[in-house]
Amino acid sequence: MEIPSVFLERAVSQFAGLPGIGRKTAMRLVLHLLKREPQDVVTFAQTMQELVENVRYCHICHNLSDETECAICSNPKRDHSTVCVVESIQDVMAIEATQQYNGVYHVLGGIISPMDGIGPQDLEIPSLVQRVDEGTIREVILALAPTMEGDTTCFYIYRKLADHPISITTLARGVAQNDQLHYTDEVTLGRSIVDRRPFTG
Amino acid sequence: MEIPSVFLERAVSQFAGLPGIGRKTAMRLVLHLLKREPQDVVTFAQTMQELVENVRYCHICHNLSDETECAICSNPKRDHSTVCVVESIQDVMAIEATQQYNGVYHVLGGIISPMDGIGPQDLEIPSLVQRVDEGTIREVILALAPTMEGDTTCFYIYRKLADHPISITTLARGVAQNDQLHYTDEVTLGRSIVDRRPFTG
Repeated sequence: MEIPSVFLERAVSQFAGLPGIGRKTAMRLVLHLLKREPQDVVTFAQTMQELVENVRYCHICHNLSDETECAICSNPKRDHSTVCVVESIQDVMAIEATQQYNGVYHVLGGIISPMDGIGPQDLEIPSLVQRVDEGTIREVILALAPTMEGDTTCFYIYRKLADHPISITTLARGVAQNDQLHYTDEVTLGRSIVDRRPFTG
Repeated sequence: MEIPSVFLERAVSQFAGLPGIGRKTAMRLVLHLLKREPQDVVTFAQTMQELVENVRYCHICHNLSDETECAICSNPKRDHSTVCVVESIQDVMAIEATQQYNGVYHVLGGIISPMDGIGPQDLEIPSLVQRVDEGTIREVILALAPTMEGDTTCFYIYRKLADHPISITTLARGVAQNDQLHYTDEVTLGRSIVDRRPFTG
């Protein structure tokens, strides 16, 4: 389809460059923007520009932050001897939303994935080892996705940290809340039987 | 979920204000932008700003354009006595993509929809009547969606133009290319039998 305006064409191409957005969706989004007040679109553009100019990564855990040290790392009420290793910023937010964790984090910024050309050197693994080297950390929780890439990354980190006097733990795997047993895959169900726990009523 | 940065929060809210984009998708898009080069995000923002500052609507047909008169209306090779009335700019692009139409357009900018509070006064219907009043138009093609709102709009325009010496036509309805007959709804199939055409081999 030929687009009747160079500026429209450019805007559509920008949106279509985002993941999961094709050209038809991009066109719909841009035409929606055009139906708004011009000032709203200027605000939209300025917000993106301010984001890239102002956002920082915490120099300790590499979480997104407005400061050089994030609100979690600078909070004295958190347990700084327990570090939860996650793939992404979204994972930090997901775990924070559970309100079940009071330690700190380490965001790897990805996961080892040879298929995508991502090796250990592309991730925040050396900085994790350095944090552990400093000697105040007692537990590292490997909270990565239970996939082949996640398991590979866990194993790589485990080997890097194995000679440190810390405990290395990982998330419990088992049946999820509200899952039907007969729809649960057999690896998960098998593991949930092997790892069964005392019933506490 | 609490977002650890004000700037991230604002950017996510801007994306989540677009149609069909929820907060989780918005977060994914914004984090994708952050993974790019900062200059790319600045370009993204500038493109949106340039769009709203530069894009124009053709003063004749109300199609999007970079000029005050669009490339179709200013093309002397097009048949300016035939006007195809469409709901949106996307419809112009869809019909242009067929390469089967050589007339000009009139973009209503919507469709009569009492449920959404859109009446005839919100659409480019008076300007259509005015174009016909000028006397050079011989045919108006009503190319609106075959829905209740589309039919209502067609009927409204038909009544406004009925006393003008022009022919008013509408798109053929019938079975679509590659459709299975037994999956075609009965209104469409019934109409395609009533409107049957000589077989030309």
